[in-house]
Amino acid sequence: MKISVPATSANLGPGFDTLGLALNIRNHVIIKPAKFHSVSLKGEGANNPKLKDNNMFISTFNDFHQNFSNSNQQFRFEFHNEIPLSRGLGSSSAVIISAIASAYAIEGIELNDKKLLNLALSYESHPDNITPAVMGGFTVSTIHENEVFFLRKEIPKSLKAVVVIPNRAISTNLSRKTLPYKYSKEDLVFNVSHSSLLTAAFMTEDFRMLKRASKDRVHQYYRMKQMPELFAVQKVALRNGALMSTLSGSGSTFFNLAYGKDAVRLSKKLEENFPHFKILICDFDNNGVIVED
Amino acid sequence: MKISVPATSANLGPGFDTLGLALNIRNHVIIKPAKFHSVSLKGEGANNPKLKDNNMFISTFNDFHQNFSNSNQQFRFEFHNEIPLSRGLGSSSAVIISAIASAYAIEGIELNDKKLLNLALSYESHPDNITPAVMGGFTVSTIHENEVFFLRKEIPKSLKAVVVIPNRAISTNLSRKTLPYKYSKEDLVFNVSHSSLLTAAFMTEDFRMLKRASKDRVHQYYRMKQMPELFAVQKVALRNGALMSTLSGSGSTFFNLAYGKDAVRLSKKLEENFPHFKILICDFDNNGVIVED
Repeated sequence: MKISVPATSANLGPGFDTLGLALNIRNHVIIKPAKFHSVSLKGEGANNPKLKDNNMFISTFNDFHQNFSNSNQQFRFEFHNEIPLSRGLGSSSAVIISAIASAYAIEGIELNDKKLLNLALSYESHPDNITPAVMGGFTVSTIHENEVFFLRKEIPKSLKAVVVIPNRAISTNLSRKTLPYKYSKEDLVFNVSHSSLLTAAFMTEDFRMLKRASKDRVHQYYRMKQMPELFAVQKVALRNGALMSTLSGSGSTFFNLAYGKDAVRLSKKLEENFPHFKILICDFDNNGVIVED
Repeated sequence: MKISVPATSANLGPGFDTLGLALNIRNHVIIKPAKFHSVSLKGEGANNPKLKDNNMFISTFNDFHQNFSNSNQQFRFEFHNEIPLSRGLGSSSAVIISAIASAYAIEGIELNDKKLLNLALSYESHPDNITPAVMGGFTVSTIHENEVFFLRKEIPKSLKAVVVIPNRAISTNLSRKTLPYKYSKEDLVFNVSHSSLLTAAFMTEDFRMLKRASKDRVHQYYRMKQMPELFAVQKVALRNGALMSTLSGSGSTFFNLAYGKDAVRLSKKLEENFPHFKILICDFDNNGVIVED
């Protein structure tokens, strides 16, 4: 059985814990019944031996598989990971989603998108990465009583992501702790209106509105202060063809969106200015998780 | 010259100072050059003599007309108002928009929608009523440096508004004062996610999502406490076919949205339960302000 799942960029500026989209950077897993448990790991994380022995995919897969099956069936897991770890590109959500989906698929038990999302909530309490990982495209999500409610929109092929991946992480937990405890009504209205306008811009494909709509007052500034070079990344991006430029999840990656024709120029400009960061141009993903027999 | 402008319902639950939509309840004005200034007033407010002498439409009209024209041209103004006053149905915004638009039109000076909105901001600092009054339909708005940025969507004919108009007002100023000074991150994320999801529901016409997406934690509860019967209005509406049920602006009107086939039943149920409130079924408006020569 083969499974693949996309990277995701969440928050998208004002849409704190709400908005997300999927990128065509994918983790692939092949799972085969075998006499003995074995693991091969290529790509991102391959040089970290801990990921072989203490593997979140396998432990999540087993949480479900052991409930379904009385057999002591063992598997060979072959991972080929493209999603960078701990950089705000949804690698944990990708692992959770692909592990649950494959545990169901390998037993031939049907699992719809909504149920997959609700199961994933036990592992990841925010919906903004798991929803686009399952559905692909641009997604808006909220949670009510352990249930994810979402709507989505395809992202057109004319757009590209230009992703800036720093050479170090920002801790998600530390990152959440630096956020204010309370917010003013003005900041609240600012993010409510901008996140709603950003949603409308994706839904109506009015991408000229993204630059204005993607402003945030709630989390980016506090998180970017931990890696001040990110303010320069955002400035360079917005001056060189980015339609929007936002911290990806809690960082450290910066997500930029541009028309295809502007993406190469934008990427070159970012490479010139930030030679120690990795710059990737990629398509958006409208498929989400894919399971193949 | 004839001008007409729709009533509007703003906030729509979570979309505080952001979301709004237009209702086919309209104020009509006929303006004719005349030897002497004169005013006739029919419909809402007609029994209030103050509205003839101290008329916001005429003073706003004059703010612009006097700048354009050196002549001492006088006018006869004939008002036929359908929009209830001081009930949260955007009567002030309707007056401001129609007065500015007609002052430009009577001089034959072009005025596009965006400029009309930006001019209206001097009179009304929130964009959520003025935008649908100008544009019709469902709108998402924000303000940046005295400029309104918005996107809109037509509302299909299959939907109806069922509006509950109480027999007294809630003061907008008092209503704003009862709101908390600061909000928790959780309440902020709640409204960001719900307002974005509500936007997506209108944009994708997925109206089953409205009931969940229209929840609010920021303003409705505090305002409804001033007229506790409104909690019962909301409950009865949501149990009897309303797809959403939200305080209109800062109240006191309650706005309900339903499929056409459910609107009469909903309206009857509300009339039975709240015989002292006025219940109106009306279409949505997708035209906004209309100026005719």
